[in-house]
Amino acid sequence: MAAVKAKFRFGLIGGGQGAFIGAVHRMAAELDSRAELVCGAFAADPDRSRQSGQNLYQLPAERCYGTFAQMFDGESLLPESRRMQFVIIAAPNHVHFPAAAAALKAGFHVVCDKPVTLSLAQAVELKALQGELKFLLTHNYTGYPMIEEARSLVAAGMLGKIRRAQASYLQGWLARDVDNKQASWRTDPRRAGAAGCFGDIGSHAENLLSHVTGLRIQRLCADLSTFVSGRSLDDDGNVLLQFAGGARGVISASQVACGCENDLSIKVYGDKAGLEWSQREPNSLIVRWPDKPFEIRRTGGAGLSNRALAAARLPAGHPEGYLEAFANLYAKFFAALEGGAEDYPGLEDGLRGMNFIEQVVASSAAGAHWVSLDPE
Amino acid sequence: MAAVKAKFRFGLIGGGQGAFIGAVHRMAAELDSRAELVCGAFAADPDRSRQSGQNLYQLPAERCYGTFAQMFDGESLLPESRRMQFVIIAAPNHVHFPAAAAALKAGFHVVCDKPVTLSLAQAVELKALQGELKFLLTHNYTGYPMIEEARSLVAAGMLGKIRRAQASYLQGWLARDVDNKQASWRTDPRRAGAAGCFGDIGSHAENLLSHVTGLRIQRLCADLSTFVSGRSLDDDGNVLLQFAGGARGVISASQVACGCENDLSIKVYGDKAGLEWSQREPNSLIVRWPDKPFEIRRTGGAGLSNRALAAARLPAGHPEGYLEAFANLYAKFFAALEGGAEDYPGLEDGLRGMNFIEQVVASSAAGAHWVSLDPE
Amino acid sequence: MAAVKAKFRFGLIGGGQGAFIGAVHRMAAELDSRAELVCGAFAADPDRSRQSGQNLYQLPAERCYGTFAQMFDGESLLPESRRMQFVIIAAPNHVHFPAAAAALKAGFHVVCDKPVTLSLAQAVELKALQGELKFLLTHNYTGYPMIEEARSLVAAGMLGKIRRAQASYLQGWLARDVDNKQASWRTDPRRAGAAGCFGDIGSHAENLLSHVTGLRIQRLCADLSTFVSGRSLDDDGNVLLQFAGGARGVISASQVACGCENDLSIKVYGDKAGLEWSQREPNSLIVRWPDKPFEIRRTGGAGLSNRALAAARLPAGHPEGYLEAFANLYAKFFAALEGGAEDYPGLEDGLRGMNFIEQVVASSAAGAHWVSLDPE
Amino acid sequence: MAAVKAKFRFGLIGGGQGAFIGAVHRMAAELDSRAELVCGAFAADPDRSRQSGQNLYQLPAERCYGTFAQMFDGESLLPESRRMQFVIIAAPNHVHFPAAAAALKAGFHVVCDKPVTLSLAQAVELKALQGELKFLLTHNYTGYPMIEEARSLVAAGMLGKIRRAQASYLQGWLARDVDNKQASWRTDPRRAGAAGCFGDIGSHAENLLSHVTGLRIQRLCADLSTFVSGRSLDDDGNVLLQFAGGARGVISASQVACGCENDLSIKVYGDKAGLEWSQREPNSLIVRWPDKPFEIRRTGGAGLSNRALAAARLPAGHPEGYLEAFANLYAKFFAALEGGAEDYPGLEDGLRGMNFIEQVVASSAAGAHWVSLDPE
Repeated sequence: MAAVKAKFRFGLIGGGQGAFIGAVHRMAAELDSRAELVCGAFAADPDRSRQSGQNLYQLPAERCYGTFAQMFDGESLLPESRRMQFVIIAAPNHVHFPAAAAALKAGFHVVCDKPVTLSLAQAVELKALQGELKFLLTHNYTGYPMIEEARSLVAAGMLGKIRRAQASYLQGWLARDVDNKQASWRTDPRRAGAAGCFGDIGSHAENLLSHVTGLRIQRLCADLSTFVSGRSLDDDGNVLLQFAGGARGVISASQVACGCENDLSIKVYGDKAGLEWSQREPNSLIVRWPDKPFEIRRTGGAGLSNRALAAARLPAGHPEGYLEAFANLYAKFFAALEGGAEDYPGLEDGLRGMNFIEQVVASSAAGAHWVSLDPE
Repeated sequence: MAAVKAKFRFGLIGGGQGAFIGAVHRMAAELDSRAELVCGAFAADPDRSRQSGQNLYQLPAERCYGTFAQMFDGESLLPESRRMQFVIIAAPNHVHFPAAAAALKAGFHVVCDKPVTLSLAQAVELKALQGELKFLLTHNYTGYPMIEEARSLVAAGMLGKIRRAQASYLQGWLARDVDNKQASWRTDPRRAGAAGCFGDIGSHAENLLSHVTGLRIQRLCADLSTFVSGRSLDDDGNVLLQFAGGARGVISASQVACGCENDLSIKVYGDKAGLEWSQREPNSLIVRWPDKPFEIRRTGGAGLSNRALAAARLPAGHPEGYLEAFANLYAKFFAALEGGAEDYPGLEDGLRGMNFIEQVVASSAAGAHWVSLDPE
Repeated sequence: MAAVKAKFRFGLIGGGQGAFIGAVHRMAAELDSRAELVCGAFAADPDRSRQSGQNLYQLPAERCYGTFAQMFDGESLLPESRRMQFVIIAAPNHVHFPAAAAALKAGFHVVCDKPVTLSLAQAVELKALQGELKFLLTHNYTGYPMIEEARSLVAAGMLGKIRRAQASYLQGWLARDVDNKQASWRTDPRRAGAAGCFGDIGSHAENLLSHVTGLRIQRLCADLSTFVSGRSLDDDGNVLLQFAGGARGVISASQVACGCENDLSIKVYGDKAGLEWSQREPNSLIVRWPDKPFEIRRTGGAGLSNRALAAARLPAGHPEGYLEAFANLYAKFFAALEGGAEDYPGLEDGLRGMNFIEQVVASSAAGAHWVSLDPE
Repeated sequence: MAAVKAKFRFGLIGGGQGAFIGAVHRMAAELDSRAELVCGAFAADPDRSRQSGQNLYQLPAERCYGTFAQMFDGESLLPESRRMQFVIIAAPNHVHFPAAAAALKAGFHVVCDKPVTLSLAQAVELKALQGELKFLLTHNYTGYPMIEEARSLVAAGMLGKIRRAQASYLQGWLARDVDNKQASWRTDPRRAGAAGCFGDIGSHAENLLSHVTGLRIQRLCADLSTFVSGRSLDDDGNVLLQFAGGARGVISASQVACGCENDLSIKVYGDKAGLEWSQREPNSLIVRWPDKPFEIRRTGGAGLSNRALAAARLPAGHPEGYLEAFANLYAKFFAALEGGAEDYPGLEDGLRGMNFIEQVVASSAAGAHWVSLDPE
């Protein structure tokens, strides 16, 4: 008879009152009952942090820390059987680097929101600290079952040689000046980094394209804009892409596409077939063939790759959403913690992403000139 | 400072190896970290039950019971602070009545899969046992945010007087003779009840229509079929509906609509507006007006009723699915356990549903004659 | 070198000021430059008829007749090379029988709107008059390329044995009392016939289902309603269907489905595959398979049957609409006039359709009892 | 009583055996029975031209000319009442300039396919020849009713100040080396001009964006590719756009997007609202608002502008397609011939389009550098 498996224990940085992504991380991490929140540093203010832990998360007072530094110290003193095993960093971008660096130094595995750091240099530094520790960068859209299917189709050569790869991520929530917690840090260079829209969502588009196609951007030409007056960072932009191997593409991203929600989509065309996916209907993947009707592959449905089937919790016809996709990353992370392969976005993706963001900003600042992305 | 809230403790009946809906219940119940599984009777066979509890759910041996009777006995002996507070019945239909009756007699709140029992008589009996205990019947589709919006629109009179209300639930998974655990009990009259397709999914369609419109079926005329040879129960059917107040409609349901997944949809038209919803795109609700363009309301989006907004976990544009809708029923159940209103399908829905199923079967057996549904 | 082909010459009954379908017929008949309008009796009032012919259609005065009787007389006196060859009857329903009967007696081929007559008896009478003359009944939806594909798939056995066949035609334009030319005759029993909604659009649904599946309705049970007060004829209804051979289905039709346009759709499921088509996206046909992803076949696209390809005027990706589908019936009619096969709805469809309408009305009037449709 | 209106008489250049767009022009021009083909020069080879005229178009031999020069000469000799009034140029691109120049010199109005010429210089020359003659450049997508609605919404200020305007036109038919009449001239610089994909369809995208938004491209940066080996012209590309007034955008076009049909779409976002349209569902226009549900406006439907209503031939719910949109341009052209306003793409659009094409090619050839489009 199989031994009883204990749940993985994790701590949370961020997720205090008014936060959004912290609660998502927790639901995703716990969805399959494989992990449980045991401690946290939930807010920048130590008092608020401690109160959030007890009020929002019903944690005992001694596991509600004032700062992440205190958390790493405190947890390290606990016996291994109670100590947290990994930390989730779900705080604004400027917290990612110090928190992740401290976690790695203290020997904790890390799950971190994207973008991984404020700069490529910081990401390189993290990489140097990683050692054998696991690092999950939550490019959560890669967790959708139909994205697994898309990646599998490309990997199996079903699309042939890729010619065109494009992504678009249009939001409208910052079309006007917005005064809330989510908006304020995302439009503040000190907390968000050098890019606004492209740090927040353009980087998702880049990662998703890379993830599905396996292609690497060699050169890019970016034209960023800031449409809402008084804003410091880009809120819209378009980037031409030249991939190693000859494929071409474009990434569009906007936070001012009035009325759009999270309209993320990708289109990839090879010399044998094409595929199209949109987060609006995440459970459908359109596959286009040159000489027969196009088909729609569905989460959990017939004819899928094993990878895609494994990413569905429910039989076909039970819509799975954002949270389930997010939880799929955690499922893979847990598999890696148990010694399995690391099949999820990690620090390599973080390095590539920070390079992308920095070069997008540099290109645009130089008048939308072409820039090269050095080989990683 | 607010007091720490403990999680609700629940037991699970069903959910052993090869089961589907048991795992769904657990994920849904625990999604918001408001409840935790503490015990169960997971399979009809006592040994398998106990092993499932330890292997699948990592429960201590003493909380893994051989039968639900043993569970109610055992849990009743525990101190209140450890004892389960409600039981989830996620076993085949024939188990619903004895398990629910035993739970109510033992003083436990109940969450039960639909159809509530094998017969209307059993449902009446349960009702007599309920007393002050809470009873959630998991007509889970009512949990979708856009169904809340639909119900709110009707309740606010935006559609005017309803004239036409129709629902369709088409599946294809039983288009051929299927030999697996899910199929075998659903096609067996002893375990599924008098109706196959209409017990399993037709009853969802009825409940969803009633839930959204508030209308009650007064008369119906049902024509059921069994298309796959060797099958004892209906696998397809159409039912004409006459509602109290004059509205008319139709319910179609099939398990042999080859290639369909869980294609549940409703359409409701009043004298002022109409609405259409489909589970294929559960985050969209189409609202049709006579004199202006039709609109699409979206989960978490602008212009929604408070009820619909409250049913969304995430901001607009983050697709929510089957599991989140299911969890919404649990969230309402927990609110009721804490003394709030009981705003979810319960035993009244169960009585109405069993009456519907029995009359559908009776009508069809009589050659698709009209039958009246007595006032409840 | 091929001989020059002259255009077919036709007369038009109906199509005067304020009419809708007359202009459609003309555009459809002339779309491929295979026919030309040469005469007409355009309105019930002789003066208005003659003025319409000259003003709306720029015809010479001597070919603008006061009545259809005058037209048949007048045209018969012309030399064969100038005389009209067929007549299009695009007037309200009560005109169909006398005009068609007169045309057939005078030796003219007939194109007639549906329903073919006011009663089955009239249709039988027409059939007796037909002789070798051609008769096109414009069930225009059968002309869509993707309907040809659907019919071809069924005929080729790709769906296997049909189990479920359903159609829905929902309109909202009569949701309120409407005072215009189109509405007034359609709601008047003397001009529309015994059925309102089911004569006007329910009959299209029946024809389309029969056309695609080849199935014949054996028994039906109809529940019709009149929701708008003061109206004499049905404006909504649902009909259960039992087809010869065992398939079951349902037809829903409404003119009071508030906010709907011409939402005609069919769904057909066999034991091997299913298909779904909707006039909202007429250039797409969904084909569902039990064991592979569903596919979307497109007008003019890859993988189509020859029949479907022949029905597309343009390469894939150029949307074809209502008018093109209508013109496809004319193209087939012209082929028959030249001696080809009669592959279009004709008097047999008219007989079947009138039988359907009469039995729907009879069934509903008897309290929605089952009625048999005698073998034709 | 109104005078009888004669039909406009036109000649056709192109449209011989194997041609595609010639037949489209004819159907579109004649759809409303406002015009008729009276003569033509149908092919480059004089014998084939004359035979096509007699066999395909049933024209008398004396109106089937060997060359367009002979046609202009011959028609000029006819009495005004029989002479053609305008010419349709539906031949490969290299024929546009000489044919249009000759027509204008001979005093005939012109309808011409896009791109208007092989070079901007030729377009300038045409402009000098135009005088009072009418010139319709068939950017046919501008004829869709929902494009009229989009343009009306922008013009009425409903979108506010435009920030982002993007268009995409993806085809897959040239994903492989294709050997047919349509493909051969489109990939031949001598007959197609300096651009392949961007001359053929990128120019449509530019025109549609300009038409709807009224914005003018000030600077662009183009990255064109030729993916199919042996091909001389671009078959794919992406272009960054900077509009006068500050809006930004991107145009993507491809002939090698494997499996795509004519997937033309535009998205425009202002500071008050956004709109999205796709030729796949040309009868729907999505309008997105920041603070209420998005709406879908429909051809012929409720709530439309007068311009959009005027562009629909049929009531809402009767799908209109490519041909009807094309015919709408002709309807406007005929109105201008009768003295009305010239509300259609003309030589100004041709000049702007040729400038766009030349600058796209220049930008790409220079390594995708930014280029300015001089004020017209």
